[in-house]
Amino acid sequence: MRKPAYHHGNLREALLAAAVDLITEVGPEAASLREVARRAGVSQAAPYRHFVDKAALLAAVAEQGFRTMTAEMRAASAGIADPASHLRATGVAYVLFACGHPAHFRVMFGSARGEGCDAALTAAAQENYGLLEAGIAACQRAGVVRDDDAQRIALFAWTVVHGLASLLVDRQLMGPLAGASERTLAETVLMQSFEGLRPPVRSRSSGGR
Amino acid sequence: MRKPAYHHGNLREALLAAAVDLITEVGPEAASLREVARRAGVSQAAPYRHFVDKAALLAAVAEQGFRTMTAEMRAASAGIADPASHLRATGVAYVLFACGHPAHFRVMFGSARGEGCDAALTAAAQENYGLLEAGIAACQRAGVVRDDDAQRIALFAWTVVHGLASLLVDRQLMGPLAGASERTLAETVLMQSFEGLRPPVRSRSSGGR
Repeated sequence: MRKPAYHHGNLREALLAAAVDLITEVGPEAASLREVARRAGVSQAAPYRHFVDKAALLAAVAEQGFRTMTAEMRAASAGIADPASHLRATGVAYVLFACGHPAHFRVMFGSARGEGCDAALTAAAQENYGLLEAGIAACQRAGVVRDDDAQRIALFAWTVVHGLASLLVDRQLMGPLAGASERTLAETVLMQSFEGLRPPVRSRSSGGR
Repeated sequence: MRKPAYHHGNLREALLAAAVDLITEVGPEAASLREVARRAGVSQAAPYRHFVDKAALLAAVAEQGFRTMTAEMRAASAGIADPASHLRATGVAYVLFACGHPAHFRVMFGSARGEGCDAALTAAAQENYGLLEAGIAACQRAGVVRDDDAQRIALFAWTVVHGLASLLVDRQLMGPLAGASERTLAETVLMQSFEGLRPPVRSRSSGGR
């Protein structure tokens, strides 16, 4: 963590916090550097000391989001020895991060983030995905996740947590589902991703394989 | 399909098409009725003949999206007798609709859609979700999907297709995954949702159940 000598103590952090507040209200597309500066109580020129343009500010928000999400996923799964429980705790933390940080989540996975031209952001995103891959590899070694193509398995697991996170962040669940806690929904969906849709015992007499 | 007598032939459809074009470029948050009118080549007052405000226009875009998605899901699964194949074809069509209509998808499932105050939109969304529920019920009757709580199973299946659709629409897949066709990815993830993560034969000697 390098820490440049700011004239104004914590300018970069203040700008990031103001950006997250603004994005929470108006979304990433409508956020402007000018309004971020106004909210942070600094001059309109000040943001340019740290961010060449809005895309650079959004990349910094996304990077901060990935680092926080990774930390929360590590903390939620720390000390859980059973590999399947460890992987599920990691996945639940992904969903809960999204619910707790919707503005970050939208920037991290929204098209407003722009194309992958920011090395620090790319590294933070890859470190995050690496947690998922490591959790799956541990489960495969323990024999609790099928030993298929690990990349396909990781995509499936990512799809599950990302799908639920997106539906919750965008408040799409209706009826009784809307009343369940985010944690309960995440645990339910992750358990189902282990079990799959097929019945545990084949009910068709299609022969063994 | 009621068809009011417009002064200007197809004004409502023209406004919807202009809105979709604009949302494709700037996102739902930044789109304005004024710019929609400009693109449709009508006066700034004209949109108000059909939409009381921007929220009403977005609701109409979302409703149009759900109706199109439902039609595409029905068409993709029509004539497929095997219930599991039918359900997977329905799910693949969900993902392909999102990829083919990203602006609609963002409005249908984005927070910009607003709270559920539009009866026609609610009906269109429920009809769409009903396809998924009916497909799962048919699979349960045929014994190819586990006979658990149907609502939990439907949430899981929705999570899978919605997660992949969101990742594709927002161009989040990287590496080799980014090179695979959307259809191939959808079929792979849906097949995995049937199989689940667990190995087909328990590798732990935890006894039968």
